Amino acid sequence: MIDEAAAWAHLDALAKPTRSLGRLEKLAVRLAVIQQHLTPATRPRRIVLFAADHGVVAQGVSAWPQAVTGLMVGTILAGRATSSALAAAQGCDLRLADVGVALPPAPPHPTFHARASLGEGTADLSVGPAMTVAQFDAAWATGAQEARRARADGHQVLIAGEMGIGNTTSAACLTALLAQADPAGAVGRGAGADDAMLAAKTRIVAAATARARAHLPADPRAAIAEVAGFEIVAMAGFFAEGATLGATLLLDGFVATAAALIAEALAPGTRDAMIAAHRSAEPGHGAALHALGLEPLLDWEMRLGEGTGALVALPLLDSAAALLSDVARLDELGV
Amino acid sequence: MIDEAAAWAHLDALAKPTRSLGRLEKLAVRLAVIQQHLTPATRPRRIVLFAADHGVVAQGVSAWPQAVTGLMVGTILAGRATSSALAAAQGCDLRLADVGVALPPAPPHPTFHARASLGEGTADLSVGPAMTVAQFDAAWATGAQEARRARADGHQVLIAGEMGIGNTTSAACLTALLAQADPAGAVGRGAGADDAMLAAKTRIVAAATARARAHLPADPRAAIAEVAGFEIVAMAGFFAEGATLGATLLLDGFVATAAALIAEALAPGTRDAMIAAHRSAEPGHGAALHALGLEPLLDWEMRLGEGTGALVALPLLDSAAALLSDVARLDELGV
Repeated sequence: MIDEAAAWAHLDALAKPTRSLGRLEKLAVRLAVIQQHLTPATRPRRIVLFAADHGVVAQGVSAWPQAVTGLMVGTILAGRATSSALAAAQGCDLRLADVGVALPPAPPHPTFHARASLGEGTADLSVGPAMTVAQFDAAWATGAQEARRARADGHQVLIAGEMGIGNTTSAACLTALLAQADPAGAVGRGAGADDAMLAAKTRIVAAATARARAHLPADPRAAIAEVAGFEIVAMAGFFAEGATLGATLLLDGFVATAAALIAEALAPGTRDAMIAAHRSAEPGHGAALHALGLEPLLDWEMRLGEGTGALVALPLLDSAAALLSDVARLDELGV
Repeated sequence: MIDEAAAWAHLDALAKPTRSLGRLEKLAVRLAVIQQHLTPATRPRRIVLFAADHGVVAQGVSAWPQAVTGLMVGTILAGRATSSALAAAQGCDLRLADVGVALPPAPPHPTFHARASLGEGTADLSVGPAMTVAQFDAAWATGAQEARRARADGHQVLIAGEMGIGNTTSAACLTALLAQADPAGAVGRGAGADDAMLAAKTRIVAAATARARAHLPADPRAAIAEVAGFEIVAMAGFFAEGATLGATLLLDGFVATAAALIAEALAPGTRDAMIAAHRSAEPGHGAALHALGLEPLLDWEMRLGEGTGALVALPLLDSAAALLSDVARLDELGV
């Protein structure tokens, strides 16, 4: 068994001043413990982008129209979105799972378009449950299936990304609900909300979170279904199943971390497979990471989503793995 | 001409929320301005490791014996040092230039061992000038030649790394001399100095820096020659020539930044070609970066040297370049 002490003992015997690589060494320890191996693997790796729409956009919480979700799905499939550009640059396989986009891209992409739609997006969480518990289960199962497929394809590091106009409203509710954050502190400008949108968003998040809380502690799935999004629940299923199957999970930003909170609530221990890529500019993200006990690798004020923060941080894992695997021991040099 | 405004205009037209990638976008702007191109290139890239010994180690300033310089040169050439492991992991060509190692590795390496030794290391800077001005010029010329070779070989991004037991003492002197830092504040534990070593190092740095200052402003080369190391001066020549030849310079930690201070003092404007990879755990590094007007990409408490901090940060440049080059414009999507 590789515990932290065993990983540190390995690192401290290498031909370098002890602990001279700071946070790279902490990352190496985390990787070794997650993979239970002193020479962890960071390739092959895959990002699965889960896309869905959100009924709450009807309330004016987003700077972008709902149709942008479908447009960006098309852009991702064409390899011209930020996520697809970064995945290509960092040698990361990419799949897209439509779990409820209102305007699906036409035609379906021949190679990596997995269509598993749950309909045309969630119901408006400001007026009632975003989804039924049956829909929650279906979204979770879709994510879990993607994790099984990724592991079957040999992927060592898994990233979940998302595309869904309005989904920071849902993520703020989930952060307030599951990380015991103040609703106002969990709400940010997402993809560019103005002051009026921010005020509407804050009111909606506070009210919907209070409604969701009424289901706790009796029925956590019903609580989460009140405020979640299909792509967020699918990510949670992806994380839980990925952790069970021994994957290393590289966690993206605010929305992905809301999904991680769901996974940890329903499948405790999922967080032990996670490395947090970055702390987002979204104000609620720090509280969500803290609730999971995760320290982010980067603090770069990123807030795009689509898994982009995780893709930027991904090659840092390659360096940590190379340190563990390829450096000589001091005793080999006779020092 | 690509100025910052032109680079921001390009980024702001891409299919993503404006400024939603935080520091990645700032890095992209810096890359575009340095390369004067909106689709900058980060490959191929090379690290040149300059190695030399330091007479001042006779004064007990280092936790490691001088022979470790030569042993580590051999380990680098065998591909088993941290620098060589990271260079391989990040697709970075590696060359080693011996500019004064007391115990050269035997046999010379057939492929990437450039031997351009200036002897068996510097004189003891605690008792007199570390080198003559003629030696300064020879070390600088060796570095400049490596930059010309790298550019002739097509390399876009250049990194200079160093191996030299005792060289943080020299770097602390240079930081105090050229970044107007307090000598005590510029001295750190390097590769693991204990309290007694740290006290000796601080006394030596204060005295040697005062001696060097006496040459200013009349003769900056003589001032620098009082306290520098052969590998540090070679790195300075590498930076100055690399900047002149249009390379992008990715700056490593404390010792490399001391070399950057030399380059900027003697070839003003060299800093404009630089991106600072990280802020080292060495306490003087922040002041040196500040003097150069550079903001580091990572703050990961690294202090190994050998170019390792720059190699860890290198793939972040790949992501910034991919953002500029491969993402669709919003107007292409019809939003």
